[in-house]
Amino acid sequence: MENMKRTATCGSLRASDDGKSIILNGWVHRNRDHGGIHFINMRDRYGETQIVVDEDAPAELSELAGSLKFEYCIAIEGIVRKRPDTMVNPDMPTGEIEVSVKKIEILNTCLTLPFMIEDETDSNETARLKYRYLDLRSGGMQSRIILRNKVTWAIRDYLQKDDFLEIETPTLIKSTPEGARDFLVPSRLHAGKFFALPQSPQLYKQLLMVSGFDKYFQVARCYRDEDARGDRQLEFTQIDMEMSFVSKDDIFAVTEGMMSHVFKESLGVDLPATFERIAYDDAMNLYGSDKPDLRFGLAFQDFASFVPGSDFSVFKSVLESKGTIKALVVPGAAADYSRKKISDLEETAKTYGAKGLAWMKVTADGLDGGISKFFAEQAKAITDGLNANEGDLILIMAADWKTACTSLGAVRSRLGKDLKLIDESQYKFVWIIDFPLFEYNEEEKSWEPAHHMFSMPQQRFIETMESDPGAVKGDLYDLVLNGYELASGSIRVHDPELQQRIFNIVGFPREIAEERFGFLLESFRYGAPPHGGIAAGVDRLVMIMAGKSSIKEVIPFPKNSAGMSPMDDSPARVEGDQLQDLHLQVVMPPEEK
Amino acid sequence: MENMKRTATCGSLRASDDGKSIILNGWVHRNRDHGGIHFINMRDRYGETQIVVDEDAPAELSELAGSLKFEYCIAIEGIVRKRPDTMVNPDMPTGEIEVSVKKIEILNTCLTLPFMIEDETDSNETARLKYRYLDLRSGGMQSRIILRNKVTWAIRDYLQKDDFLEIETPTLIKSTPEGARDFLVPSRLHAGKFFALPQSPQLYKQLLMVSGFDKYFQVARCYRDEDARGDRQLEFTQIDMEMSFVSKDDIFAVTEGMMSHVFKESLGVDLPATFERIAYDDAMNLYGSDKPDLRFGLAFQDFASFVPGSDFSVFKSVLESKGTIKALVVPGAAADYSRKKISDLEETAKTYGAKGLAWMKVTADGLDGGISKFFAEQAKAITDGLNANEGDLILIMAADWKTACTSLGAVRSRLGKDLKLIDESQYKFVWIIDFPLFEYNEEEKSWEPAHHMFSMPQQRFIETMESDPGAVKGDLYDLVLNGYELASGSIRVHDPELQQRIFNIVGFPREIAEERFGFLLESFRYGAPPHGGIAAGVDRLVMIMAGKSSIKEVIPFPKNSAGMSPMDDSPARVEGDQLQDLHLQVVMPPEEK
Repeated sequence: MENMKRTATCGSLRASDDGKSIILNGWVHRNRDHGGIHFINMRDRYGETQIVVDEDAPAELSELAGSLKFEYCIAIEGIVRKRPDTMVNPDMPTGEIEVSVKKIEILNTCLTLPFMIEDETDSNETARLKYRYLDLRSGGMQSRIILRNKVTWAIRDYLQKDDFLEIETPTLIKSTPEGARDFLVPSRLHAGKFFALPQSPQLYKQLLMVSGFDKYFQVARCYRDEDARGDRQLEFTQIDMEMSFVSKDDIFAVTEGMMSHVFKESLGVDLPATFERIAYDDAMNLYGSDKPDLRFGLAFQDFASFVPGSDFSVFKSVLESKGTIKALVVPGAAADYSRKKISDLEETAKTYGAKGLAWMKVTADGLDGGISKFFAEQAKAITDGLNANEGDLILIMAADWKTACTSLGAVRSRLGKDLKLIDESQYKFVWIIDFPLFEYNEEEKSWEPAHHMFSMPQQRFIETMESDPGAVKGDLYDLVLNGYELASGSIRVHDPELQQRIFNIVGFPREIAEERFGFLLESFRYGAPPHGGIAAGVDRLVMIMAGKSSIKEVIPFPKNSAGMSPMDDSPARVEGDQLQDLHLQVVMPPEEK
Repeated sequence: MENMKRTATCGSLRASDDGKSIILNGWVHRNRDHGGIHFINMRDRYGETQIVVDEDAPAELSELAGSLKFEYCIAIEGIVRKRPDTMVNPDMPTGEIEVSVKKIEILNTCLTLPFMIEDETDSNETARLKYRYLDLRSGGMQSRIILRNKVTWAIRDYLQKDDFLEIETPTLIKSTPEGARDFLVPSRLHAGKFFALPQSPQLYKQLLMVSGFDKYFQVARCYRDEDARGDRQLEFTQIDMEMSFVSKDDIFAVTEGMMSHVFKESLGVDLPATFERIAYDDAMNLYGSDKPDLRFGLAFQDFASFVPGSDFSVFKSVLESKGTIKALVVPGAAADYSRKKISDLEETAKTYGAKGLAWMKVTADGLDGGISKFFAEQAKAITDGLNANEGDLILIMAADWKTACTSLGAVRSRLGKDLKLIDESQYKFVWIIDFPLFEYNEEEKSWEPAHHMFSMPQQRFIETMESDPGAVKGDLYDLVLNGYELASGSIRVHDPELQQRIFNIVGFPREIAEERFGFLLESFRYGAPPHGGIAAGVDRLVMIMAGKSSIKEVIPFPKNSAGMSPMDDSPARVEGDQLQDLHLQVVMPPEEK
């Protein structure tokens, strides 16, 4: 490399460099022969530059230029020159110039590519993952990996300047089975014993608060041995934070400031100084989701008040069994929504447990179609009450509260997409607060933590926590962005007795709690401070910022949806003596024996 | 926390705050009752402040103050006041003021401590690790964790501004057994298959170069399943870098700039603009180590030239068998070094394989003691040649080259400590360059990579690599600080055929190489650029900067020397169904059955 080391990058040259002698290192992105003139687009991480081997170049140089195939890695020496006015390419930062080539050195050749290196590829995922090192050369992947670096850098920059300490927590820890499955790591030195990989640094960041580090953060690798479904990865990255002597307002302020800094620095986007807050109950009642996409409206309205005046027995019986009846007014959708299309919406609702989806259309004369005949007398009261106008479609859902909310929420989400109500350029953050602390598991007939076991119940519920767990709201909060849960956190319990009461409710009697979390409970007895925190998914954040719908698009080397890597073929069988050293034997499941 | 949230920290108040009403949150560090006045040292991460409950305070407040035990977590409200001149404590940043307390709230009590929270504790390691959350409250651990944060922040700051991208590489990868043992992670979804935790991001950072990211870094967690010996940890952190289109000078320049920035920002220490470079052969010949501590001299000199003129048969036979004879002149040590003390030095040499350690003392009349009688006639030639003066001790080692160097090197290290030649305030960096690419393993009768298999042989050795592997110098380099190997790196091979030739020499025929590193070799065939890199141990760097001799002192939650965590008792047995899910069965070794 000594003699042909670059003196400029493929993104740096401008008209002001006219006449300069330069060396570029990079890849052959395109190579066209126009009547003996070779136009080569040379590419590196910083951009593209057109290099030209002129017609009157030495035959040897022309021949060499002609031999350059896609993705050869080359070094060139040449003179920068302005392009003729008619040839200037305003879409290319280096489009004012080209480089007249005097010397070419091939640093490495390239086999025939499995797919073209384009900005965005449409080749299949397996090929992209097998040749990830080539896929990462595409303009899209390059820009997303660079964006990811900008985002984590902006996060660190903001938090460091706010006196947060980035502290590394261990990743070979004790298995505390709860929530998702732990990945286990067999110990060679201690036969029959295992470490686990952390699902999050939760326990350790709380211990750091006990240690007095009062403002902690970490860009932390976390692990969940989950089944392959949806857009999940076995390992993922979260920005993990914890603070002492704070209330949730302090945590919100830091998070809002950090997100504003990240969006400004990485995308040039200004976020509002504070984000909206919606109580969990309200989010469910209005949008049927604890992660509502607020880039569009379509909020639910109560419909129950219209039912007593009608003789529609289905709704009446729902009310009698303490159910919920909600209406969703879709402006101007009456004409476009045929029975068929409404029936499609109903299918969506049914996948969330609804038995059906009722509807009516608003006409000049009142209500029409669907269940309108049962409400003919109240037509004006309903359209006035729901603020519905001629041409609107009214969808009505009756079911138990949770089913009514979530199934109508699914319908709302679908309408948002189908009706193109979503402005893709918007970033709508919202805090969801006042979550329930416990959820009842109908199958297990037991209470479970809605978030995790270390969250603080709100003061007014503490006394009656055991007698009515379902009513307890916690100091828990989620940060939602464009319908995605982006971050989640809580004020933690720091009193060992209160912590044990919570363990008791979720079925962790003292001996099991001590066995699993003894060191945390013990630490609370040594002057643990009040504390709380939050953790945000880095993969998801960058995915949303990049306008993508899969986190694989923003992870350099992801696993495929089966949890495997087609590039290195991992996981893989290992040599027998490796297992022997670990005191392990594989027991294959019957069908694979 | 709402009403008693801090408005200042325990490190922030100064004389200029006199008269201010403030709230502090923190821990009771000391509590003294001086004739009814309670002087409490309150501590947080930022410092200590003396708070005072005056004699005339309400009885209830005095009583509460008297009840505060070590490490109670408290909130106090009070008025800042200047201390009387005679009470000012110049050693304490807040020593000009105290806070007159109006209100105390106990946020959490504290059990009797297992050890006192002092700046440095002398309690035993097991207690410190079991109660690590308390150990981390000590002034020493607090300052070291804060230093560690400063160091990694300064590293990132420097590299980001130099256009490096921090890119995350996967930690669930394929096991490629070589070097240290891999930790394995059993796959639940793929029965009988395993991931490995990375020993370093080596393969992935090379792939990122193939992808065109040209300047990569990562503060990366790495794993080695090594036996418990010395100051090792199962998981450790390295600052990992890789660059394309560079020679080693470029990598040295970035590393030197980064280290200078880190030392300036974290310790206020100025490092030289460039670091000394010593070839591996010279380092061995002069200091008997490839990681010499250059904070003191005691360089070796050749002694072989004096042997032919003597009749000392031991040395003669060493020379006949192509051995090496080296002298180490210890200025002024003749008087102090008795036979007993020299014999102790000899023991040190013997642990490195030497058969003995010869010596002579320089007197006014010539040479005396030890083997001097064999060299009586050459006394003046020797003292002149070695530049030895009256009162100096001359130590002489004769053995094969490597044994002579390393055993005399061990003697030199010991002398450096015993004679207190080391200025502990110094930071002496040195690059060791021109390492051999291959080492011969006498036991296995085979060639092994001296560093790793991906390093580039220097150009002049490539042709004859197979015929004389031992002569091949590689573009390998170590950065040494104060006798510790701090960083290690190389220019890599980027030519798949050259890479295969190296694999062949170290006994990895094509099929095994393809099986293990096929994806890397394959990637080289798609226009891989010339590249190289370096990786530095973060734990060790911070340890040296903190003036400590164990990396446990700079890791928040380390394992003990048996590779266990006394705090959470990991590794631990896991529940049977966890193993069943992983298709595994434990096979206990016989003695533990």
